[in-house]
Amino acid sequence: MEQSLLPSFSEIYKDKLEEQFKESVAALEAPSVIKESMLYSLEAGGKRIRPLLLFATMQAFDVNPEKGIHTAAAIEMIHTYSLIHDDLPSMDNDDLRRGKPTNHKVFGDAIAILAGDALLTYSFQLISESAHIDAVTKIRLVNEIAKAAGPEGMVGGQVADMNGENQQLSLEELEYIHIHKTGKLLVASVKAGAILAGADDSQLETLALFAHHLGLAFQIRDDILDLEGSEEKIGKKVGSDEHNHKSTYPSLLSMDGAKKALANHIERAKGNLKQTGINTRLLEEITDLVANRDH
Amino acid sequence: MEQSLLPSFSEIYKDKLEEQFKESVAALEAPSVIKESMLYSLEAGGKRIRPLLLFATMQAFDVNPEKGIHTAAAIEMIHTYSLIHDDLPSMDNDDLRRGKPTNHKVFGDAIAILAGDALLTYSFQLISESAHIDAVTKIRLVNEIAKAAGPEGMVGGQVADMNGENQQLSLEELEYIHIHKTGKLLVASVKAGAILAGADDSQLETLALFAHHLGLAFQIRDDILDLEGSEEKIGKKVGSDEHNHKSTYPSLLSMDGAKKALANHIERAKGNLKQTGINTRLLEEITDLVANRDH
Repeated sequence: MEQSLLPSFSEIYKDKLEEQFKESVAALEAPSVIKESMLYSLEAGGKRIRPLLLFATMQAFDVNPEKGIHTAAAIEMIHTYSLIHDDLPSMDNDDLRRGKPTNHKVFGDAIAILAGDALLTYSFQLISESAHIDAVTKIRLVNEIAKAAGPEGMVGGQVADMNGENQQLSLEELEYIHIHKTGKLLVASVKAGAILAGADDSQLETLALFAHHLGLAFQIRDDILDLEGSEEKIGKKVGSDEHNHKSTYPSLLSMDGAKKALANHIERAKGNLKQTGINTRLLEEITDLVANRDH
Repeated sequence: MEQSLLPSFSEIYKDKLEEQFKESVAALEAPSVIKESMLYSLEAGGKRIRPLLLFATMQAFDVNPEKGIHTAAAIEMIHTYSLIHDDLPSMDNDDLRRGKPTNHKVFGDAIAILAGDALLTYSFQLISESAHIDAVTKIRLVNEIAKAAGPEGMVGGQVADMNGENQQLSLEELEYIHIHKTGKLLVASVKAGAILAGADDSQLETLALFAHHLGLAFQIRDDILDLEGSEEKIGKKVGSDEHNHKSTYPSLLSMDGAKKALANHIERAKGNLKQTGINTRLLEEITDLVANRDH
């Protein structure tokens, strides 16, 4: 069996990412409370799956992932802003995120809203100022990321999720939510890595499909873990989706059907990777991690 | 006396702007409620001073302002998102804006937050997709606008304004708030018009100074109107700043001092315009309007 490459790759680039967060926020000429609030949520951890997908995609093209550091940081800032706003009392009203008090519990609702706004706006500034990247590439990145994060992507998915609360959803409605709320930004992360690495259109399309299936697999695994996971590892009560009357893959397809759907998306994701003709070993390892993760 | 050009110019381009809002929002593949919420606030009116500054700056270079329509719409979307978020219960808690119920009073807090997020994100998408503009120009626009709107600009100013509530501010602190909360996006509007029109660096710098002084004049006039204006015209009670213990130019400089400061900024703004060597008649008319406006 080949040795796993992902742990050391992941450690190196997560460190670089966190360095970038510190450096970017420290350099801002802004009131200290907003800088503290931005950094608080950026440093709250998480899987960093979006930046890792971007870096691993660049590595697959044998291009130094370092060149993608600003874009990766920008995407993670957008993900982070969405968590801050989602946690607000008028949205999901969550007090804890990854075991730490949510941004508004520490800084108050007003600063939390503004820290989210600041992270979102600054992410586009960061891409526009990224060194060693030509303007055509930068504007493609801005376009892909804005589409994935805005009303046609993540924001639209969050609206659909709220509209669907306490309702019995169809599989189609459930997938609309997942594809928009989390899927599109995952796809944009992979596409951004590919764009930075100079991928051709056919590679871009195949990699986007890979990320699409990976994103759905991620969500199905989430739903399965909610029922079969260890409370200690997933950090919330087992069965909380059912308790909250949330439509999930197991509730719509049965547990067996959900597991088959997961296996199917993983297979298709890997099939897409094989078609690209590049060295996708790290991306395959990320795929296995998504399929088998226990938290 | 020369005939005023501004009214017809203003009418033509305000109409084009509102057409662009309708067209952009209609084309979005997103849940209908978020589209309605975005359009509700975009169509709530207002002076449209930012787009008009952009268009008038392009006209001053004898470049067709039409080319700036997407950028002007993007800037007004950012201004509009900031009003939606500022009006929220956890921020200024305003029920009315320009005589109409605020966004969250109509759509609820959650959709209002998301409509703001959607407008902000979409504004960068719109710039990135703007036709007939090269990538170098687009990325300069993204950079100028993101800097002006983010933590080093508008968001930073809003934080400073909140921090300064119910406190006696120094003139320096008051100007920090105005320069960041409203000034930088006004400067970015003029700079964006100049960038689109191919201005050289010295023209850009002089026009940025013009907009800086215009922005401060706008705020001083606002403070004066709060004390001397007609309640009917300004749409709020005379003396509301004093009532809310807000530091203002008249409270810091006396009414006479505030009027002198206003005259001084208007004179400097016009002086900057004269230095540019372009046909700044529309920009001068906007400046006169700011100096003498009664609402």
